[in-house]
Amino acid sequence: MTDPVQEITLDPAERVLAIREIENVFAARLRIMDTKQWDRYGSVHTEDVVSETFGAAVTDESARRPAVVGRDALRRAIEGVLDGPVPVTSVHHGHTPEITLTSDTTATGVWAMEDKLWWSNGSTEEHLHGYGHYHETYRRVDGVWLIAYRTLTRLRVDTTPGFFDYRSRSPQE
Amino acid sequence: MTDPVQEITLDPAERVLAIREIENVFAARLRIMDTKQWDRYGSVHTEDVVSETFGAAVTDESARRPAVVGRDALRRAIEGVLDGPVPVTSVHHGHTPEITLTSDTTATGVWAMEDKLWWSNGSTEEHLHGYGHYHETYRRVDGVWLIAYRTLTRLRVDTTPGFFDYRSRSPQE
Amino acid sequence: MTDPVQEITLDPAERVLAIREIENVFAARLRIMDTKQWDRYGSVHTEDVVSETFGAAVTDESARRPAVVGRDALRRAIEGVLDGPVPVTSVHHGHTPEITLTSDTTATGVWAMEDKLWWSNGSTEEHLHGYGHYHETYRRVDGVWLIAYRTLTRLRVDTTPGFFDYRSRSPQE
Repeated sequence: MTDPVQEITLDPAERVLAIREIENVFAARLRIMDTKQWDRYGSVHTEDVVSETFGAAVTDESARRPAVVGRDALRRAIEGVLDGPVPVTSVHHGHTPEITLTSDTTATGVWAMEDKLWWSNGSTEEHLHGYGHYHETYRRVDGVWLIAYRTLTRLRVDTTPGFFDYRSRSPQE
Repeated sequence: MTDPVQEITLDPAERVLAIREIENVFAARLRIMDTKQWDRYGSVHTEDVVSETFGAAVTDESARRPAVVGRDALRRAIEGVLDGPVPVTSVHHGHTPEITLTSDTTATGVWAMEDKLWWSNGSTEEHLHGYGHYHETYRRVDGVWLIAYRTLTRLRVDTTPGFFDYRSRSPQE
Repeated sequence: MTDPVQEITLDPAERVLAIREIENVFAARLRIMDTKQWDRYGSVHTEDVVSETFGAAVTDESARRPAVVGRDALRRAIEGVLDGPVPVTSVHHGHTPEITLTSDTTATGVWAMEDKLWWSNGSTEEHLHGYGHYHETYRRVDGVWLIAYRTLTRLRVDTTPGFFDYRSRSPQE
């Protein structure tokens, strides 16, 4: 937000088309994640992507985990959480994007979001239901817009008491 | 998806405007359905529309019903489900469209979706809450984009035990 | 809707860009409200904005309150509801906009919406969960699209029995 804005040479049609392509890559990520197409998950991100969303469900700051860096590490991290030893059904929805081009090949985006997760803890169904905003940056690489950075701020998160027990069952975690 | 892609002659502005018009017809369908304006429901679809969404709430494949074909049949089918002998309050939301023009007059679209249905079963309120993706195709007819095909894949559906009892009360069903 | 439509001189790219800017101001309002940035709330509306959404949660028409008129009055009203003596956590989501330009500097918009509110009533957590459609108009003032009018129609509202008790605790209400 405080970076100097580069000159944008795109005409109005090109600008709107760029915003559409950014919205498409955001949409594809959520769909790929919720339908567990892990082979495609990395490819919507830049090679050097940084994600700070892990642990954003916990309100205890000291329990938050460090950023995940790199396309392959990110794919392994999310696959470990959602599709490791404990399978988790997930629904992630994104709303009302505010996309700002910061140059012809870079942009920022803020999206309202809601996520739901479910897993079977023996005979108990565990559930998380969260609300917040994704804050992302995008970069155009070889003509394709990709996600370069993501963090998540929360308005509220509700969970069943045993929801985070899945971590103790998951070697990746 | 495997069809050969026709040449697209639209310029960038026309392409983005086409995508907007497609998003508008999708939005109008959900609003018309949830506000029960049945006289307008057919008109957002092509005459030969095919819908395979009926029965998408049930996980038993053998219980799925065949496609509904044609604008008038589709309107009667959905009105029968939502506004027949048993009135059903419905909320359908669509998110993060991925629209792809396949020619100047045809397109495909995938939308994340969430639906909620409620009806009164005597003193019990029955409820369905589902999540998934709409997969649609669109066709431009006489200058207007219309929905030509729709199916629905599900991530999860929760219902109260008696939710589907309304079918036994509805002659249309 | 029945006003005579002014001539639109914007070209296709400018029209789509205008629609994007309108969507951005809608998105910003919800984000500013849910993150309680009251100093910024007025600025996304015209000076003479009219809001008829207050009391839209109640089904008893006689209990509905009059329109709030003006940027500053609107900000005080919403701050009083959500961030007065009784703090309320809120999540407002808007979906599938249908934006129509009615001139180069005016537009209408309909959005599907869902809202959730929570507050602590002693040891009870009170909750409202609603669904409906925002109906807005927009006006371009000094080159910036702003919200000029808003009302809300409801499909359904669920609340805990004591939800509206916060009003008796709030001098602003």
